[in-house]
Amino acid sequence: MDKMLLLLFLGLAAEICSGLDNGLARTPPMGWLSWERFRCETDCTTFPDSCISEKLYMAMADKMVELNLKAYGYEYVNIDDCWPAKERDPETGKLVADPDRFPSGISALADYMHARGLKLGIYEDFGVQTCAKYPGSEFYMEIDANTFAEWKVDMVKFDGCNSDPNDSPYGYPTMQFYMNKTGHPMLYSCEWPLYESKKTDYALIRKTCNTWRNSHDVQDTWDSVLSIIDFYGDDNQNFSAYTGPGGWADPDMLVVGDFGLSYYQQKAQFGMWAMFSAPLLMSVDLRTISQEALAILQNRNVIAINQDPLGVPAKRLDLQLPNSISVWTKPLADGSTAVAFYQEGNSGRPTLVSTTLATIGLASGNGYNVTEVFDGKGMGTFKPSSPFKVLVDPNGILLLKAKPM
Amino acid sequence: MDKMLLLLFLGLAAEICSGLDNGLARTPPMGWLSWERFRCETDCTTFPDSCISEKLYMAMADKMVELNLKAYGYEYVNIDDCWPAKERDPETGKLVADPDRFPSGISALADYMHARGLKLGIYEDFGVQTCAKYPGSEFYMEIDANTFAEWKVDMVKFDGCNSDPNDSPYGYPTMQFYMNKTGHPMLYSCEWPLYESKKTDYALIRKTCNTWRNSHDVQDTWDSVLSIIDFYGDDNQNFSAYTGPGGWADPDMLVVGDFGLSYYQQKAQFGMWAMFSAPLLMSVDLRTISQEALAILQNRNVIAINQDPLGVPAKRLDLQLPNSISVWTKPLADGSTAVAFYQEGNSGRPTLVSTTLATIGLASGNGYNVTEVFDGKGMGTFKPSSPFKVLVDPNGILLLKAKPM
Repeated sequence: MDKMLLLLFLGLAAEICSGLDNGLARTPPMGWLSWERFRCETDCTTFPDSCISEKLYMAMADKMVELNLKAYGYEYVNIDDCWPAKERDPETGKLVADPDRFPSGISALADYMHARGLKLGIYEDFGVQTCAKYPGSEFYMEIDANTFAEWKVDMVKFDGCNSDPNDSPYGYPTMQFYMNKTGHPMLYSCEWPLYESKKTDYALIRKTCNTWRNSHDVQDTWDSVLSIIDFYGDDNQNFSAYTGPGGWADPDMLVVGDFGLSYYQQKAQFGMWAMFSAPLLMSVDLRTISQEALAILQNRNVIAINQDPLGVPAKRLDLQLPNSISVWTKPLADGSTAVAFYQEGNSGRPTLVSTTLATIGLASGNGYNVTEVFDGKGMGTFKPSSPFKVLVDPNGILLLKAKPM
Repeated sequence: MDKMLLLLFLGLAAEICSGLDNGLARTPPMGWLSWERFRCETDCTTFPDSCISEKLYMAMADKMVELNLKAYGYEYVNIDDCWPAKERDPETGKLVADPDRFPSGISALADYMHARGLKLGIYEDFGVQTCAKYPGSEFYMEIDANTFAEWKVDMVKFDGCNSDPNDSPYGYPTMQFYMNKTGHPMLYSCEWPLYESKKTDYALIRKTCNTWRNSHDVQDTWDSVLSIIDFYGDDNQNFSAYTGPGGWADPDMLVVGDFGLSYYQQKAQFGMWAMFSAPLLMSVDLRTISQEALAILQNRNVIAINQDPLGVPAKRLDLQLPNSISVWTKPLADGSTAVAFYQEGNSGRPTLVSTTLATIGLASGNGYNVTEVFDGKGMGTFKPSSPFKVLVDPNGILLLKAKPM
């Protein structure tokens, strides 16, 4: 570990241990993040509409307004890697936005968002360089925290490329300390413990970050999405226990509306991310999104499960159902339970599951009123021991809400 | 090899060697086949609308009429495995349709199709049992061919489960002989050389069958579709040379409109199947198909490439393009060339390909008028050596038609 960092950490430890209390992310954050869909394209001559530039973020903000996405809860518009110039300001040491691609600067972009009732997120890295080799925050954390606050940025994604992973438990809290010290509330999105190879101190992460990435970068493929779902089902070290109001495990962006997922797979990702109490960060071109995909992202019933104030993430039950179907349950604040039947595989046609509510842990003697969440249709009332039969689509989710009677 | 079969084969060899000349499949057959989407569900109590029954095929025929699919070229409605009773008629040895699921019988179902301008396909197997353990045709080929003709069936899919694969070059021609002998034209769809382990005699297959399956059963996944596309690109033994009017290599059904493919992946399958001059057999629930998927299946420009009278399948060029993009060209009867840029992979965003028409083999000095096929939009005129830049979607296809000027 870098000695300067260690000294800083020791000096700041007492204050850090008071825990993260920035008042943010009482429910999982919702918004838009450029990475998965737009990556690190910096050639604005060839790709004027999709390069990483202020124009892109302004266009997405405009579409968020036009599509009324704020009303559904989506408020952050988040920059990812590749926004800065390759060198810091030689006099001040401050980060500088790439002058060609962000001619108005980040502060003006934040103003643009705030004028529309939206918020701006930015990206930095705890190492010496970002993943795409832009200037990192190591040795500059205080300056960067102050710069982001000065720019009125609302969220900071802090990556871990080009750092010593063993430093994560020191570096991330240090940045938190400096961000807190600015007095400007900034939601802190940590790429930690993703880069760690050792046992993770989830309690420390929970104290440090508003959201934390513990699984690999999502890709626009079903294999990627299902591997993340499996990871959350396995729940190693019981990490789900640390998720709740103020701090959320982050399975990465939504790829709903992109190129690689079928309609059923998109529903499954959105429904499962809701079950995880995960951040809902779209990464899609909102200018060309299909109506079908937009309707998924604007499903108020599913969003309500994600934003449920109890903030308890779903657990996977071990029921040995056919065709790789798993069942997940998530308690809700009103005493209901959200239940997901999720089918990873694809045998060509829907699979019939015959079970009982008791089998999935719903044992209230008065029975339950069950509704299908995506379309809001009632399915009827069921006693815990009554036969309960459902059809689960291939690569799909059947998302239910069971309310005790 | 079974001795009876061998004797039959020797006796019939001269006639068989005259080749397949049933006048059918001058362009690749188009229609609907139940297997991929509906499999072998025989429980009509639990699944009244999706079990393998006459009701299902009648419902699909009704939807084909309602959706005007005949006008696009789709005419066959094809039964797959699991239609017969488990035992043949003990007196006549004839196959009998399952009396509970096909109470009106196959002949009545054929009448139902013909009354609507459609055609009926049926399924049997060259072995002792079908893949799902229903009665096979071994020892019953003449009876079965006569039965199918008597029922006025228009197409026969002949599978190879539970047979000795070494018998394929004898068994399939034998069935062809008996089918020809009936005098009733039946399109002959062979599951050959799929089960063969040795070098394939494609010339014999071409003489025997109207369509032949040489790749694995398609599944409703992108991995499955792309592996079949790769197989057709590899073109081992140059099998594409045997495809043409009257006989077509068959990469199996379309899964457009099912559960597992994204919109872009569906377009890619449909576009590539068109490039292959492949049979276009939908396997989708036409009662619930999305408008988006239906529009793909009803794209007249793409269908025209599939049905082009020249009947020459596309060849894959070896151009070493970025992001696993391959280029395929197919000559058309009017002197144009259909060109597919196909991207197997998914890097999150479209990939720019910079090439020239000369590089993809289009060298006419007067240049070409290029149109995008799916939406019919003109892209302009290009000389062979002019820069030619296109964007190719992840998991997608850009299908072009280049007409010499």
